[in-house]
Amino acid sequence: MKDINSGILAPSGFAGSAVKTGVKNSSLDLAIIYAEKEARTVAVFTTNEVQAAPVIFSREQLKSDRIKAIVVNSGIANACTGEQGWLDTVEMAKKTASKLSLDKEQILIASTGIIGKNLPMDKIKPGIDQAAASLNKSSGSEIARAILTTDTSIKEKAFKFEIGGREIKIGGVAKGSGMIEPNMATMLAFFTTDIAIKTELLDAAFREAVAKSFNKITVDGDQSTNDMAAIMASGMAGNPEITEKGNDYHKFVRVLTELAEFLAQAIVRDGEGCTKFIEVVTAGVRTEEEAEKIARKIANSPLVKTAIFGEAPSWGRIAAAVGSASNNFSKSDLVIELNGNKIFGPAEKVYNFPKDILNQNEILINVDLNAGHASAKIWTCDFSHGYIDINTKYYS
Amino acid sequence: MKDINSGILAPSGFAGSAVKTGVKNSSLDLAIIYAEKEARTVAVFTTNEVQAAPVIFSREQLKSDRIKAIVVNSGIANACTGEQGWLDTVEMAKKTASKLSLDKEQILIASTGIIGKNLPMDKIKPGIDQAAASLNKSSGSEIARAILTTDTSIKEKAFKFEIGGREIKIGGVAKGSGMIEPNMATMLAFFTTDIAIKTELLDAAFREAVAKSFNKITVDGDQSTNDMAAIMASGMAGNPEITEKGNDYHKFVRVLTELAEFLAQAIVRDGEGCTKFIEVVTAGVRTEEEAEKIARKIANSPLVKTAIFGEAPSWGRIAAAVGSASNNFSKSDLVIELNGNKIFGPAEKVYNFPKDILNQNEILINVDLNAGHASAKIWTCDFSHGYIDINTKYYS
Repeated sequence: MKDINSGILAPSGFAGSAVKTGVKNSSLDLAIIYAEKEARTVAVFTTNEVQAAPVIFSREQLKSDRIKAIVVNSGIANACTGEQGWLDTVEMAKKTASKLSLDKEQILIASTGIIGKNLPMDKIKPGIDQAAASLNKSSGSEIARAILTTDTSIKEKAFKFEIGGREIKIGGVAKGSGMIEPNMATMLAFFTTDIAIKTELLDAAFREAVAKSFNKITVDGDQSTNDMAAIMASGMAGNPEITEKGNDYHKFVRVLTELAEFLAQAIVRDGEGCTKFIEVVTAGVRTEEEAEKIARKIANSPLVKTAIFGEAPSWGRIAAAVGSASNNFSKSDLVIELNGNKIFGPAEKVYNFPKDILNQNEILINVDLNAGHASAKIWTCDFSHGYIDINTKYYS
Repeated sequence: MKDINSGILAPSGFAGSAVKTGVKNSSLDLAIIYAEKEARTVAVFTTNEVQAAPVIFSREQLKSDRIKAIVVNSGIANACTGEQGWLDTVEMAKKTASKLSLDKEQILIASTGIIGKNLPMDKIKPGIDQAAASLNKSSGSEIARAILTTDTSIKEKAFKFEIGGREIKIGGVAKGSGMIEPNMATMLAFFTTDIAIKTELLDAAFREAVAKSFNKITVDGDQSTNDMAAIMASGMAGNPEITEKGNDYHKFVRVLTELAEFLAQAIVRDGEGCTKFIEVVTAGVRTEEEAEKIARKIANSPLVKTAIFGEAPSWGRIAAAVGSASNNFSKSDLVIELNGNKIFGPAEKVYNFPKDILNQNEILINVDLNAGHASAKIWTCDFSHGYIDINTKYYS
């Protein structure tokens, strides 16, 4: 596997473009990712009951199994917009299909931005015209920029690897959840690959990669109305089509997961007001579900997050979060480590540790309950004055 | 029911005192609440698995049904302190019993403050001597002060009311959870009353009052290692003993609940960095459990709390929190109101509303799912720069 210093348009068989519609003043704010020939496409969506029109629409569209283009706009999420929001989403798909000589059923739509505001279709429609007319192979980074909202940097990456002597490429692009900020933002991620693989195996591989990456990050515990991740596979790498879960499949899953992990971590590192990247690892838990619950409780604790922002090693807050999340362990078995230094336990022993232990940008919290064999890992960031500054602004 | 402008020592049959042991430098930091004759005592405790020694100890002590004194120290929580922590708690009870000519089984102990640090018994023991020797009827407010940690003001209140022509008094004192801050703090509440009531009915009444007050507040969703609430009833009011859930019982529950609500709201209003008091009401939910889950999701959402701090009416964050907490409703039935103004729904209709709608100190969020008949109410506060300033400090 090799980093090819590229992004979403690296794999064979894809083109794209990004334009300024004016929704976000003078920034790029609409992008098309286009499969030149047929492609297999799978996607996952937010489970929030308050789903934006494009989420409901795209989930339906996938059933056609003939997706050829993804249209993404930023600035307005088209969420909580009622009947008009639905009509606007359908209109975006019709407009794109017409310009690209496709059927409406071949288009996915994703939106991100302000909730409760309708799309200015007089800006969106000319933007689609312009984007559809300017598809090319070199605008990967512009696509990465056009999907951003409160993010401060683009998030893109591509890897290549081999299967059966054929070079396979996977490219990806993501936008931050700010801090999973469902008012101005949302988590979006799009992938392309030229691997030849059956749709159901692409789906299984993608779900596994997403479970280990985007579903392991949390910034403030809130889930957006618009979250969506999708992958298109062109099959143009020329490898023998993957039709079973053998070595080739697992190799693909490994590379795809690594790419998804990179983008997921990039989202956290660019979290609203983030000054430190935090990895929480729980071990010795009775079940995986509980291990993840405890890790998320620690990762979402405002007390833990503000302490880390202040480089204050108040480990008691971690102990309290663990005990608050689970009763299936004994406090005398609990062990806490910070950045590899033993801090607490077992038998409630308190260790001396360097007081500047949090004086770095990457923080590792290890918690061992010594009650079982399950473990979990969650990535998050600290909680700073910057987060408050960003989130007290009102966008209307 | 009448506010008698007093506190924990208002009811007949109780005395108390507060002293400076030196644990918290020059502040009052140890208090005794003492029943002059026999009293009936019930209590509730944190469900955190990582419980402090005094919590484990006091739960056991209650079984004696002969409690006569509660000793509370602030500054050090005696949590995560292992065998020595346990021995210190037992020693505190022994010392108090010896000074007051009681049995060790008649003492409850509560502690609040830093986790992971042992009590300096060379300061605590002389403090107990001094407090036991100076019991009086007029130090209610000093007791209220001695139990504080990061709180900025004392929280005390007493009511009187009549049952069968006899005057009944209930007094209470509480300390803030800061912002439920399990490192430096915890939620403690103590009540006294002179009502005559059977122990099991006192227990039922207290649990009902706690459920409607202290269990309805949240500041940052974290639960402490040391939370405890207790009530002692002296029976000295001379009313016919309450032995069944009749009118007198329900009258008592109403007044006790009102007192507990007052103290619970006072804790929130004094939450770390609090600038606005927030009431979240969910209605039209299928079950009470779900109604409370949704209300807590809104109340604990950093996005909602920072928006309210900034007076930014980003109601989309409330919609996203609701949809994130429940799938048992239809988004087209969702209705959101802010301070009595209709903002959103049904049919995803977005209303015009005054942009300064959050420009006041009391914020009311109403959410109606129109999916059932259950409702819930949660009190919380906003999320400010002050919260971060307080919680980035390190106490060791």
